[in-house]
Amino acid sequence: MSFVAEQLERLRPTWEHMLRHPFLLETRDGTIPFETFANWLREDYLFVEAAVPFIALMIPKAPPSHWELHSQVIAMFHKELGLFRERAEAVGVDMTDLRPSFTNHAFIQFLIATASQRSYAEIYTVLYAAEKAYHDSWTVVKKGIDPASPWYPFVENWAGEAFAEYVAYLEKELDALAAAAGPAERERMAELFETTLRYEIAFWEMAANGDGWPEHERVALAAAKG
Amino acid sequence: MSFVAEQLERLRPTWEHMLRHPFLLETRDGTIPFETFANWLREDYLFVEAAVPFIALMIPKAPPSHWELHSQVIAMFHKELGLFRERAEAVGVDMTDLRPSFTNHAFIQFLIATASQRSYAEIYTVLYAAEKAYHDSWTVVKKGIDPASPWYPFVENWAGEAFAEYVAYLEKELDALAAAAGPAERERMAELFETTLRYEIAFWEMAANGDGWPEHERVALAAAKG
Amino acid sequence: MSFVAEQLERLRPTWEHMLRHPFLLETRDGTIPFETFANWLREDYLFVEAAVPFIALMIPKAPPSHWELHSQVIAMFHKELGLFRERAEAVGVDMTDLRPSFTNHAFIQFLIATASQRSYAEIYTVLYAAEKAYHDSWTVVKKGIDPASPWYPFVENWAGEAFAEYVAYLEKELDALAAAAGPAERERMAELFETTLRYEIAFWEMAANGDGWPEHERVALAAAKG
Amino acid sequence: MSFVAEQLERLRPTWEHMLRHPFLLETRDGTIPFETFANWLREDYLFVEAAVPFIALMIPKAPPSHWELHSQVIAMFHKELGLFRERAEAVGVDMTDLRPSFTNHAFIQFLIATASQRSYAEIYTVLYAAEKAYHDSWTVVKKGIDPASPWYPFVENWAGEAFAEYVAYLEKELDALAAAAGPAERERMAELFETTLRYEIAFWEMAANGDGWPEHERVALAAAKG
Repeated sequence: MSFVAEQLERLRPTWEHMLRHPFLLETRDGTIPFETFANWLREDYLFVEAAVPFIALMIPKAPPSHWELHSQVIAMFHKELGLFRERAEAVGVDMTDLRPSFTNHAFIQFLIATASQRSYAEIYTVLYAAEKAYHDSWTVVKKGIDPASPWYPFVENWAGEAFAEYVAYLEKELDALAAAAGPAERERMAELFETTLRYEIAFWEMAANGDGWPEHERVALAAAKG
Repeated sequence: MSFVAEQLERLRPTWEHMLRHPFLLETRDGTIPFETFANWLREDYLFVEAAVPFIALMIPKAPPSHWELHSQVIAMFHKELGLFRERAEAVGVDMTDLRPSFTNHAFIQFLIATASQRSYAEIYTVLYAAEKAYHDSWTVVKKGIDPASPWYPFVENWAGEAFAEYVAYLEKELDALAAAAGPAERERMAELFETTLRYEIAFWEMAANGDGWPEHERVALAAAKG
Repeated sequence: MSFVAEQLERLRPTWEHMLRHPFLLETRDGTIPFETFANWLREDYLFVEAAVPFIALMIPKAPPSHWELHSQVIAMFHKELGLFRERAEAVGVDMTDLRPSFTNHAFIQFLIATASQRSYAEIYTVLYAAEKAYHDSWTVVKKGIDPASPWYPFVENWAGEAFAEYVAYLEKELDALAAAAGPAERERMAELFETTLRYEIAFWEMAANGDGWPEHERVALAAAKG
Repeated sequence: MSFVAEQLERLRPTWEHMLRHPFLLETRDGTIPFETFANWLREDYLFVEAAVPFIALMIPKAPPSHWELHSQVIAMFHKELGLFRERAEAVGVDMTDLRPSFTNHAFIQFLIATASQRSYAEIYTVLYAAEKAYHDSWTVVKKGIDPASPWYPFVENWAGEAFAEYVAYLEKELDALAAAAGPAERERMAELFETTLRYEIAFWEMAANGDGWPEHERVALAAAKG
């Protein structure tokens, strides 16, 4: 079995748990509160921005034949950032003075730490797992969302044909990298696959339920109790 | 005003919030449940272990005159790891098959990402803020804990004289680095000081209330509801 | 005086030494042996290729507002690589099985080590000094080379208007970075400026006189003596 | 055949070329000019100093069980630096205002670039090849040098029993890392083994014949001709 197939099989319950996340189901059904989605939009904007240096850090470790892919991915992220800004503008989401939530900050640190210290095949695993998770998650949303929804362009972006092909391309390459890796590296790749999935779920969790840095929750709680 | 004094002044409410954390007060008063402290012990063992590469990554960016300090800090961390193992053994805390909680994993990624990508003065800021937070936190515990407590050796370690001198040394050096930095770098240092403090609070929060990766909480919840 | 003006003033004799290098003068006058220029072409192809990861490593340390520049520089390098391949094809330079000379390998290691471990302003200094050196060097060649020369497209590329504007842009940004830096960082920037210039001269030296790895020279020498 | 045995077999002519280097033979025979050896001493002091961050950068990529080794190697380097200073003091070698020669600077950049961007097994290869080269080189010197030579303590250090055991330990570990690596990584390891050997020869070459940065040679030449 290929590396990716093996991971998806091994992690199936957790992967399916992700795909049933209330944030996705409520976005699909049109019951998601505007402010909840707006919060996700702000957070994910910061996350995609942070993914640019993540990809850049892969370049020195990549074979030169992969550089064109990385340049294209960076260009794709810039296009996504434009989509976020366009949507925010169109529906009135305030994008000023953004600061990442705790979970978002943590996920970003995970990307940068991994891309700084790990092997190319290990970093590639995180890239694939994150993109595959997004493709599958938004595919769930696509099956049911009203095409007139203001959030539909996000669905089109990640559940669309072009993104599907990109994820399929990544999968083929990741399987090749895993096939060429020794057993210890492949084990580290498997662990990073799982960790990425967990961060993705934490991200939906944060999007659905909000998440602040600890002292903020406390201060907010105290104020509410006050 | 020196950089450190300025930061401690600016962040005083949050810093004091940290020092009033229930985990610290209950450890001081001897009311902390054994399993709660044992959980902290396991998590902090992993954190101190991860701090070794954090320090190592400072070395290529440091002036050679600072290398001896870094070697000593790494040796100190190894001694701390020994203390954790000795205490765990003495009181029966299971240290097998440790895996970092979400908050711990996130804090570790923050250390490695920062040490990989930021300037020496910025990384030094994180080191200082983390060590100062530990010194102040355990100093709170020291004022009241029963010296016969099985946790007393930790108090001795971080609230003791040697550690106080080490923190004072770091403070002097950090102030010198900040004085030599330009305004943009100093601003990034201030931001990292605050971020480190927030992660420290998140760490006490995790120690007190437990924290798992999102899907685990869900699974646990579902099982409990079942 | 701005940082760049100060460096160019300080290093003027060495800079002018570079601009009088026989490789440049002979290329200008059309007296350069074909194989000498072909050797430069092969080496510089490898160098430009290695400059792609150098730029990529700047991205995580750069303000996001600089990322577009870096993406454009990477695209420019890919266009330059195309120019090398087109020229090699046109005039019959063998580009198979390229391996960097000692000096080229060293220069590439300097780029990657610097981009991996130094601050953004320090790395920017190396980028600027290298691009400025190329612009000035090829401007020397431009004053005299026969426009029908097979090497003219290289002259056009680095001595042309677009590259001049790019170098002027880098200069403005580097001056701003230096103005915001503290004195210690600015001193490290000045040192890297000089080191880059020295590597540039070493590169022309290698292009003109050939350069192999030590044991090869020996073996070649022994064979010649044999 | 183990990885190391395979490399030593493959590179035997170049390795033996290194062991016949005039610098080594003349040091063995006591015919080396004082200033030539003093020059090597100054350069190698800088090189060993730069090897400290090289080792430090291995730590985040190493399994924690290897950290003790790395700490010991750093301590060993500090001891070696002390030996250099002691010898310089004893025989009157001026150690003020040291600056690396071109070849030394290049070798240092190679260490830092490799340790920053490559996998643990690849970096380990460079460490082993450099230490093995030193052990074998100084073993050549040991067979014949007058024990009363002021340079004898260097011979004792690298050709002695403790260093031999350290190199044997590194070899065993490197063979294990190579056995666990996939074919692509093992090929990169083989290439780095060879590159390290070439830099070692370049280092002896520089020690024997002097080496300045290009413009210095020119200036010196011009002055001499003047």
